[in-house]
Amino acid sequence: MSPTYDKVALIGLGLIASSMAWAMKRAGNVGEIRGYARSEETRQTAREIGLCDVVCESAAEAAEGADLVVLCVPVGAMGLVAEEIAPVLKPGATVSDVGSVKKAVIEAVGPFVPKGVHFVPAHPLAGTEQSGPRSGFAELFDNRWSLLVPVEGSDEAAVERLEAFWRELGALTERMDADHHDLVLAVTSHTPHLIAYTMVGVADDLRRVTDSEVVKYSAAGFRDFTRIAASDPVMWRDVFLTNKEATLEILGRFTEELFALQRAIRLGDGAHLQDYFTRTRAIRRGIVEAGQDTDAPDFGRGPKR
Amino acid sequence: MSPTYDKVALIGLGLIASSMAWAMKRAGNVGEIRGYARSEETRQTAREIGLCDVVCESAAEAAEGADLVVLCVPVGAMGLVAEEIAPVLKPGATVSDVGSVKKAVIEAVGPFVPKGVHFVPAHPLAGTEQSGPRSGFAELFDNRWSLLVPVEGSDEAAVERLEAFWRELGALTERMDADHHDLVLAVTSHTPHLIAYTMVGVADDLRRVTDSEVVKYSAAGFRDFTRIAASDPVMWRDVFLTNKEATLEILGRFTEELFALQRAIRLGDGAHLQDYFTRTRAIRRGIVEAGQDTDAPDFGRGPKR
Repeated sequence: MSPTYDKVALIGLGLIASSMAWAMKRAGNVGEIRGYARSEETRQTAREIGLCDVVCESAAEAAEGADLVVLCVPVGAMGLVAEEIAPVLKPGATVSDVGSVKKAVIEAVGPFVPKGVHFVPAHPLAGTEQSGPRSGFAELFDNRWSLLVPVEGSDEAAVERLEAFWRELGALTERMDADHHDLVLAVTSHTPHLIAYTMVGVADDLRRVTDSEVVKYSAAGFRDFTRIAASDPVMWRDVFLTNKEATLEILGRFTEELFALQRAIRLGDGAHLQDYFTRTRAIRRGIVEAGQDTDAPDFGRGPKR
Repeated sequence: MSPTYDKVALIGLGLIASSMAWAMKRAGNVGEIRGYARSEETRQTAREIGLCDVVCESAAEAAEGADLVVLCVPVGAMGLVAEEIAPVLKPGATVSDVGSVKKAVIEAVGPFVPKGVHFVPAHPLAGTEQSGPRSGFAELFDNRWSLLVPVEGSDEAAVERLEAFWRELGALTERMDADHHDLVLAVTSHTPHLIAYTMVGVADDLRRVTDSEVVKYSAAGFRDFTRIAASDPVMWRDVFLTNKEATLEILGRFTEELFALQRAIRLGDGAHLQDYFTRTRAIRRGIVEAGQDTDAPDFGRGPKR
């Protein structure tokens, strides 16, 4: 089969980009993979592990002549990178990204995209708590959603080509507008991350419970929070700074509900608590049925009888 | 080897009790396992799957003549069960439990324990989001902590025997006093559960994001919350009602910190966010190093390259 894109440039070589590189190799759907990372150490690692066909010394060098350029840097850095590569973009090329926030990326990158170049923002909903060029693996996107967020005037053929590309990497695709994307992600990802970070910080601060106790006894629920709270700090800083409105809205609702449950605990209102906890069970069932998680107990940590 | 306990009675046949039953069979460390559950359906299931040597029709029937009686019912039901079995307890027997809260259990059960019977409360820190007699598996306690909380005047030999029993089931053991236990668990388990329940409830309530969207896009962080929030509603209702003080204290600290982060988002204070997120990473490393979780990305959901 002929490649979906002849030359693909990955700008930023962290967890998502390195997984894309391995997934492209597995799919055999691109001609050449070019990569660039700001840190010399990351570029060196990428060369060592054979992550890309060519590791370049600048974003512009990687992007030049590419048919698809994917910005895989923290959301706050996207605008700068777009400005840098704009002059070398090939007419007819597609610029995309993998940022967790879409409105801010569109505002930051959009103005730099030259006429004749397609801009198709995207967001693969996949990740782990690990980061860096060694953390990627080809299966990361398998059966996960990649959301495409076409902008005003996006070329339909360019969008469809990018959808095909993501499906070849194992993902499912869906289109969404930027505002809705940012709200959905505030619910399913951004606010949960902030809450997990907070809870881990509280545990770390509490003088009467030692860190070693927190670590030892984490299996009781806390360790799932620590995994989330081990995610890349710069990436997440940028997510909250750039999806401020939606995150603050969901946080407001969260504290409202938390206060209602706190009040039920204080008043000893067992019926309220039990009703609430019963309702939340159904959502879990939905997620397992939708194939978005395993029903093996404890994520398969404990074998089934 | 001679059995650690000749006859063991499990009162309540949910996830923990059924895992104990399989773990005892694996260890071969008890003579006979007797079980009782309040629901006829659960007793029937237990018989079908061969969970116990004898499934009894009342708690007293199961406890009579047992060398170890383990209360595996929700914390709020412990006192009633203790009252029921008190008259039939064998002199020299040990009564223990697996409740997630210790002060309230000691207050509820202690007064019913006859002179000459040892009362050694315990709490195995292990579980999954599943419940009921079919959810147990022998490996649940392997390399997990079981906390023993001896009460005033506990017999040292009885405590040591129960420690040996738990180690034979695969667990590590540690002793702790009840107040400290309840505080540690409020941090590592109870508050994280309440927060997860709340976040899942918020997602379910939000009209502009559909449940199906929440389910579809859950892989971005939310699904770890849904697993926690799928835990047994009655058990968790009782935990919050009986560990009220410590939970409310930790919740207070949590909302304080959350408001500080919320303010940093509102003010665009990226340095504050990045510092906070960097600090929480270290705790995760400690947990993986302590063998309390796997460092396989995404709990082993995604294979490592």
